[in-house]
Amino acid sequence: MAVPPNFEFKNAESKTDLSTFIGLSAALLIILVTLILGGQYKIFFDLPSFIIVFGGTFAITVTATTWTDFVNALSVMKSTFRVTQIEQRVYAKKLIDLAMISRQHGAVNLQQYETALRSDGFLRQAVRLVTDGIKTDEIESLLKQEIDSNLQRQEQAIRVLRRAAEIAPAMGLIGTLVGLVQMLAKLEDPASIGPSMALALLTTFYGALLGTVILTPLATKLEKRTDEELTQKVLVLSATLSMARQENPRLLEIQLNSLLAPKNRIKYFEE
Amino acid sequence: MAVPPNFEFKNAESKTDLSTFIGLSAALLIILVTLILGGQYKIFFDLPSFIIVFGGTFAITVTATTWTDFVNALSVMKSTFRVTQIEQRVYAKKLIDLAMISRQHGAVNLQQYETALRSDGFLRQAVRLVTDGIKTDEIESLLKQEIDSNLQRQEQAIRVLRRAAEIAPAMGLIGTLVGLVQMLAKLEDPASIGPSMALALLTTFYGALLGTVILTPLATKLEKRTDEELTQKVLVLSATLSMARQENPRLLEIQLNSLLAPKNRIKYFEE
Amino acid sequence: MAVPPNFEFKNAESKTDLSTFIGLSAALLIILVTLILGGQYKIFFDLPSFIIVFGGTFAITVTATTWTDFVNALSVMKSTFRVTQIEQRVYAKKLIDLAMISRQHGAVNLQQYETALRSDGFLRQAVRLVTDGIKTDEIESLLKQEIDSNLQRQEQAIRVLRRAAEIAPAMGLIGTLVGLVQMLAKLEDPASIGPSMALALLTTFYGALLGTVILTPLATKLEKRTDEELTQKVLVLSATLSMARQENPRLLEIQLNSLLAPKNRIKYFEE
Amino acid sequence: MAVPPNFEFKNAESKTDLSTFIGLSAALLIILVTLILGGQYKIFFDLPSFIIVFGGTFAITVTATTWTDFVNALSVMKSTFRVTQIEQRVYAKKLIDLAMISRQHGAVNLQQYETALRSDGFLRQAVRLVTDGIKTDEIESLLKQEIDSNLQRQEQAIRVLRRAAEIAPAMGLIGTLVGLVQMLAKLEDPASIGPSMALALLTTFYGALLGTVILTPLATKLEKRTDEELTQKVLVLSATLSMARQENPRLLEIQLNSLLAPKNRIKYFEE
Amino acid sequence: MAVPPNFEFKNAESKTDLSTFIGLSAALLIILVTLILGGQYKIFFDLPSFIIVFGGTFAITVTATTWTDFVNALSVMKSTFRVTQIEQRVYAKKLIDLAMISRQHGAVNLQQYETALRSDGFLRQAVRLVTDGIKTDEIESLLKQEIDSNLQRQEQAIRVLRRAAEIAPAMGLIGTLVGLVQMLAKLEDPASIGPSMALALLTTFYGALLGTVILTPLATKLEKRTDEELTQKVLVLSATLSMARQENPRLLEIQLNSLLAPKNRIKYFEE
Repeated sequence: MAVPPNFEFKNAESKTDLSTFIGLSAALLIILVTLILGGQYKIFFDLPSFIIVFGGTFAITVTATTWTDFVNALSVMKSTFRVTQIEQRVYAKKLIDLAMISRQHGAVNLQQYETALRSDGFLRQAVRLVTDGIKTDEIESLLKQEIDSNLQRQEQAIRVLRRAAEIAPAMGLIGTLVGLVQMLAKLEDPASIGPSMALALLTTFYGALLGTVILTPLATKLEKRTDEELTQKVLVLSATLSMARQENPRLLEIQLNSLLAPKNRIKYFEE
Repeated sequence: MAVPPNFEFKNAESKTDLSTFIGLSAALLIILVTLILGGQYKIFFDLPSFIIVFGGTFAITVTATTWTDFVNALSVMKSTFRVTQIEQRVYAKKLIDLAMISRQHGAVNLQQYETALRSDGFLRQAVRLVTDGIKTDEIESLLKQEIDSNLQRQEQAIRVLRRAAEIAPAMGLIGTLVGLVQMLAKLEDPASIGPSMALALLTTFYGALLGTVILTPLATKLEKRTDEELTQKVLVLSATLSMARQENPRLLEIQLNSLLAPKNRIKYFEE
Repeated sequence: MAVPPNFEFKNAESKTDLSTFIGLSAALLIILVTLILGGQYKIFFDLPSFIIVFGGTFAITVTATTWTDFVNALSVMKSTFRVTQIEQRVYAKKLIDLAMISRQHGAVNLQQYETALRSDGFLRQAVRLVTDGIKTDEIESLLKQEIDSNLQRQEQAIRVLRRAAEIAPAMGLIGTLVGLVQMLAKLEDPASIGPSMALALLTTFYGALLGTVILTPLATKLEKRTDEELTQKVLVLSATLSMARQENPRLLEIQLNSLLAPKNRIKYFEE
Repeated sequence: MAVPPNFEFKNAESKTDLSTFIGLSAALLIILVTLILGGQYKIFFDLPSFIIVFGGTFAITVTATTWTDFVNALSVMKSTFRVTQIEQRVYAKKLIDLAMISRQHGAVNLQQYETALRSDGFLRQAVRLVTDGIKTDEIESLLKQEIDSNLQRQEQAIRVLRRAAEIAPAMGLIGTLVGLVQMLAKLEDPASIGPSMALALLTTFYGALLGTVILTPLATKLEKRTDEELTQKVLVLSATLSMARQENPRLLEIQLNSLLAPKNRIKYFEE
Repeated sequence: MAVPPNFEFKNAESKTDLSTFIGLSAALLIILVTLILGGQYKIFFDLPSFIIVFGGTFAITVTATTWTDFVNALSVMKSTFRVTQIEQRVYAKKLIDLAMISRQHGAVNLQQYETALRSDGFLRQAVRLVTDGIKTDEIESLLKQEIDSNLQRQEQAIRVLRRAAEIAPAMGLIGTLVGLVQMLAKLEDPASIGPSMALALLTTFYGALLGTVILTPLATKLEKRTDEELTQKVLVLSATLSMARQENPRLLEIQLNSLLAPKNRIKYFEE
């Protein structure tokens, strides 16, 4: 059980989440190109229609929830575009690295790795609790509280996004009904029928765009992300408690493997 | 453990709930402005269409439930526009203030704070039970019954609102079908087609407005509000029982923290 | 504990349920007035369209269930228009009245109140079991069987009504499709387009009327009524067993209060 | 406890299920008469439209399941048109008749009633196991396996029917979209618009007919039938085990009553 | 208990799944023939419409999930076109054959059957663990991990397919809205209305095709397949553990029968 020679923790860097970014960009691009190829792309950009759908969805979502929850949902939604590129396999091994350092050189010695962990706030906080010699019970309660608080915040954001995704097409329909009624009321001018109706349908298009292309996929991605982050934080919790209790890192390996998906399980001590 | 010098309880004042009020106003304003900008806003106000949707939704909701439940739902719905601006953090601290006063000067001394609590009916009732020297068991049973009764009333109101929100668009559709049939039956006059059809679509618009913009968001807000009020009343219950049992306020702090969301947890005795 | 002087039981009279009757009448009236004001009301009464929707819904509902269940559903549905005007508070007190008479004058003496109970079949049957001196176990088993049987019958009726409420709009759509195909096939006569299409839409209107205005609200009301009747019968069961066991009526009060909604709880022995 | 003199078992004869047969026939007849009265009934019979909806639904249902499951579903579906006209009351009494014969004359004597039971395969099989002197444990395991296997088969058929009922309207929509696109592509010939569009709508009509009028009601009826058959087979199981164990038929009566719906409970030994 | 003379294991060959292949081909053929018979089949093949629906569905599905999950879903989806033609009856008997060989000639002797098992990867891996003399506990843990990992992978693929099946019709609607707005904006040219609208409807057609005809049935088939494969792998697990524990094959028969559907149960030792 030699201490890993040059311990690094570069994996936790935050990168753009390519599946979110490219997927969403591609969907919007495909639609945009279709608009331009149709040679009439200007008609698709209409400020009043935009306001009735995006503004209306925004206003009703705030009505149904609170301002705090809404702002929280927006900030959590943004986070789906960044991903901390961590392979759970690699992350679990790094946690055992830390456990072995702690085992062999004492928990206090972990202090020198704090800079290496600066990109992973939760892990750094956990390690500091150990080096500060806080009692195991308190460490467990503090970290669980942190995990809980984060989980609650993300679940609330997912609920707000799903609600907004239901409101968007309904606002689109309301906008189209307004447009149709206005068009039909002044039917005497036949030349204006086409463009008026085009304008009326625009809000339905905006509503479908906002609900189907933007809000629903991001809510689904956020659910997946929440699951992954929860797993990762529970890994850190296990490792931290193991270090605080000064248990054998071999025991930690078994615990981590029981938390990891089958394909990510590790064999640290047989390599 | 000094008694808080000038104890105030101004937090429990009832204010307009800005997220409900501004959100709903903004949504209706956006739609209204769209109507006016279209230059035909008069056609959107049609009494018969209004009666068929709003009156019909009202009548069918009463059919599906009872008159008492319906009136109850309306009065509870109104309450989503007012909010008792209480930060749970601050509220929990005030409860510990009360517990400390009770601990140091005796429960009877709480009487002098009754005026300060006049804006918070439930808490005042709870404190009076303590100062009157009612037995702990009876206090618990009385307060739980009160909480239960309120919860039941709000849940029934939410069910009625959700049901009405489903009926509204269906009544809109019925109104539009009536209008379409009437229009098609006298098709010989081509000039009247447009306005007649505009009128026919109006009920669908009203139905979507009533269901999507008004009833559903208020029902959702009411659900959120019910959750919060329940938490707050359970805080009061815990504090009241703690005072009645003359327990150490430090114990109360632990109990309150276990009821509060992570971000609202307090540290009364470490400040 | 004096025997209530002039014991009456007039509360259990069956009256028209005003919320069902007025609610449904108002909804139908609003629609009817709209039809008449449109000046074309005759077109809304078309026998073939009526048969395809109402007859079709009837036929398919029978296919999906059995003739017995269907007839049962109709007879239970009718019962939502009558209500036995019982306030649970008052009813519970009358049950304690009976228990006190039984306690002080002996169960046999209850016989003389049988006429007073003639409007409440279930209670009269329960009281007769006590005066006949049937064993408590058998009374419990007989009354529970009766409650069970009634509950099952009403739940089956609710299921049939909900199913019919789903079939009605589908039959409306089928009727409209038939009408549209027929109209389009003889398009050469432009004068007939309007009235033909009006006729085609009529079945969609009938389907929405039958499903949304009649069947769904009645099914929902029936659910509420079933809940209330169950509570009332369980009150009778508790009181009857208490009398059969010759328990103290004070004990009965506690049992009844645990079954009643908070706002209906009684204080018989403190008044 | 005299042996029933002339034991017959004629109840188990299979008859046409009138609610399925008349209900479905009436629904189809109503629609057919509407078609004929419209004077254009020929347009409603179009082979290509028929193939795209019925063939398409068939093909996609097979894709989603397996050929075996599909054939099984068809054969089970057919069974909803036949019903073995058994009143559970009467059936339960006959089972006690058998139990009494077995008790008084010995199980072997049941052999002579085998002809009387020939129309009820499951009961005959069960009785033969008793007369053959098979051990009680094995009888129980064999009959339970048979019940299980039948239940599984019917549940799978219900799933396939429900799935087909969802596919049918979707295929109708696809057919209509194909028809509309074809019609719109050759819009230059105005005379053909009406009939082409009529034809296009035909598949939506077929899809609604197949899904709403045929598949969904039969799936629902099958669910009800499966429940009834299960009850009846569990009655036979109880009676068979009681005979195999040579228990007192009075005990069997209590067991059967606990399985029967309240209204069907019997009083064999008090008549 | 003689060893089966010439042991073969040809059943596990992978063949085309005819119900998937023929079912899907038939559905697409029916639609294709309808297109061709309409004499306008060229209009149904439009690259931009194809890109907006298929490309859009693809892009949004990737946004909502991750690239890895998406590729995994495609590869699992392909597997629904191949089936390893195994009757569970026959397979279970072959497993008992193996158990008897192992019992009579020793587990090491199973090695010579490895070639016979080459087409069934999971069984071969399981048998090799036995012949290698791995401990029973470890065999159980390794095989369960393998089963788990496979199950998880398929369930994730089913979720992705179901999500894509919901996105496809929504993209179809968005495409149609774009087309309608473009057509209505240049309404001055009446000749182009028909073909433009035909083109606009094409994306709705593509969306229904992709969602209803391709993705949903394949997801449903995959669910069924996952169930079957799980059963088969659990059979292998039972047989492997039985061999590793050197249990009597008669015990294994009972275990296998408890896992098999009633109709597939075997009687190995009575034939």
